[in-house]
Amino acid sequence: MSNNSTDEPTRDRLAIHTITTKAWPLEVALERYAAAGIGGVSIWVEAIEGMSATAASRAVQASGLQVPALVRGGFFCDSDSRVREQRIDHNRTLIETAAELSAEMLVLVVGATPGESLDRQRGWVQDGIEALIDDAKAANVRLAIEPLHPMYAADKSCINRLTEAREICESIRQPILGIAVDVYHVWWDPNLQREIQLIGANEALFAFHLCDWRVPTRDLLNDRALMGDGCIDIKGFRHMMDAAGFAGWNEVEIFSDEHWSRDQQTFLDEIIDRYARC
Amino acid sequence: MSNNSTDEPTRDRLAIHTITTKAWPLEVALERYAAAGIGGVSIWVEAIEGMSATAASRAVQASGLQVPALVRGGFFCDSDSRVREQRIDHNRTLIETAAELSAEMLVLVVGATPGESLDRQRGWVQDGIEALIDDAKAANVRLAIEPLHPMYAADKSCINRLTEAREICESIRQPILGIAVDVYHVWWDPNLQREIQLIGANEALFAFHLCDWRVPTRDLLNDRALMGDGCIDIKGFRHMMDAAGFAGWNEVEIFSDEHWSRDQQTFLDEIIDRYARC
Repeated sequence: MSNNSTDEPTRDRLAIHTITTKAWPLEVALERYAAAGIGGVSIWVEAIEGMSATAASRAVQASGLQVPALVRGGFFCDSDSRVREQRIDHNRTLIETAAELSAEMLVLVVGATPGESLDRQRGWVQDGIEALIDDAKAANVRLAIEPLHPMYAADKSCINRLTEAREICESIRQPILGIAVDVYHVWWDPNLQREIQLIGANEALFAFHLCDWRVPTRDLLNDRALMGDGCIDIKGFRHMMDAAGFAGWNEVEIFSDEHWSRDQQTFLDEIIDRYARC
Repeated sequence: MSNNSTDEPTRDRLAIHTITTKAWPLEVALERYAAAGIGGVSIWVEAIEGMSATAASRAVQASGLQVPALVRGGFFCDSDSRVREQRIDHNRTLIETAAELSAEMLVLVVGATPGESLDRQRGWVQDGIEALIDDAKAANVRLAIEPLHPMYAADKSCINRLTEAREICESIRQPILGIAVDVYHVWWDPNLQREIQLIGANEALFAFHLCDWRVPTRDLLNDRALMGDGCIDIKGFRHMMDAAGFAGWNEVEIFSDEHWSRDQQTFLDEIIDRYARC
C-alpha cells in the first residue's frame, strides 16, 4: 500500500485511540503504534489509570507520538447539583492531565440522566462547559463536544446530533470550544453535510473519529466495525470534512468485542491498511 | 384501576399489536384482548401467515375488536429496480389484505439497503408510496409512514426522524397518507414537539405507538420496555399528541424477549394497567 498518492491520507495524520487496542497496556500501544509509523495516539483515561500523569507523559514523549486528545471528560448530567459540581471539578483535573500529556484537546461526552428532559440536561451541559472555559484557556487545552448516537440518549449523552453541539458552541462562542465528529454517531443524520459546513465555517471542527457501522450491529456498545466493513461512506465523509476546512487528525476509535479478542498487532496492521484505502 | 377519570385514557381507545404477545396465535390474542375490554388489535402480517384474509377477517369480526392497522408494509429500498417494483406489488397485496381486515391503515416501515445513500433511498420510498396512493384510495386504507430510530438506518429504515416522514407526506399531499408516531423511535428527537405540531396541523397524525426505552437497552431489536419501565415521558408525549389534535388509537407495540418469555396473560394485564397509569 503506497502512501505517496496525493489522494491518500498520510500516515502521519493517523492517530489511534488506546481503547481500540485495549488489551495492550499503554507502553505496548505506544511502542506498536510508533513502530507502525503512525503520528498520534489519543489516550483514554482508563489507559493511564494507576500511573501519574508525569509518568504517562514521559512514556508518550519517548514514543515520539503526538496526542490529539485525552478521552473522555464531560458527563455533566445529574439531577443533583452537587454531583454536577463534582463532575465539573473532575473535568478540571482532566484538563490538567491533558495539558501534562500535551494533548490538543479533551473530548467531552456530555452524559445523560434517564428520565430527565433532554432539553433541560443540555442546559446543564452548557453550564458545565462554561465553567471550564477559563481552565481550558489557561491550560491551552481545547474542549471538543462529541455528540453520541441517539441510541445513547437515555444514559450516555443528551447531545445526539451535531446540531445541538453546534448550538452550544455558538452560544458560548469561544475558540477553545469545538466539536469531535465521530462517523459512527452522526453518519445517519439527514443534515450531516450542512452541519459539517456550518461547524467548519465556525472553525469548530476539532476532531474526526473513524470506525464503521456493522450490519447487523449485534451490541449497542461494543460492535463497531473496521472502516470498510460497515455501511458508512467513509470516503464521502472525509471529503465533506476536507471541504469544510478540516485538516486535523484522523483518529481511529473502535470498540469491538470481536476485534479486541483478536491478535492486536494483526488488527493494528488492518487498521492502517483500511485507513489508507478508505 | 378506574377508567372513569377524565384524565385517564379510556380502554376502548387502547389497541395491542399482535407481535406484543407473539406467543399467542391470532385466535387466542383476539379472545384475550376482547376479554380484557380493550377496543382494538393491530395485526401483524406474521400473525395471519397461513390463514386466508377472509378467515382472519372473520375471526377479527367475531372478536368485536376493531383494527387500527395491518403491520407492516413498506420495505421499498433495494438497489435493484426490479426488486423495488416487486416490493410495490407486494404492498398492493397488503393494502387488499388490510381492506379485508377492515384495518384503518397499513403501516409502512420503509426499509434500507446498507451502503446506499440514505437520501437516494428516500427518493425510492417516495416513488414507492406515490405508486400506491391510488390503490390505497380505492381500498380506503390509509398509509402511515413509521420513522424508525436512527439505530435502524443501516438496514431497516432510511427514514429516521419525523421530519423526513413529514417532508414526504407534504410532497405527496394526499389525505390518505400520514405518519405513525412510535415513542420508541422518536422520543430522543430535539424537534419532537415542533414536528408533532406540524404533522398534526397537516392532519397526518395517523397512529400513536406505545412502549418504553429500557435503561440499559441490551438488544437493538427485542428489548423494549413496558410503559413506565423506561426513560420516556409517556404522559408528556401523549399530551403533545393530544395538543396536536390526535384523537386516534393508543397502540401498544412491544418487542421484548424478556416479556415474550413470561406468562402472556400476566403481561397483558400489566399492559392494561400501565396504559391507564402512563
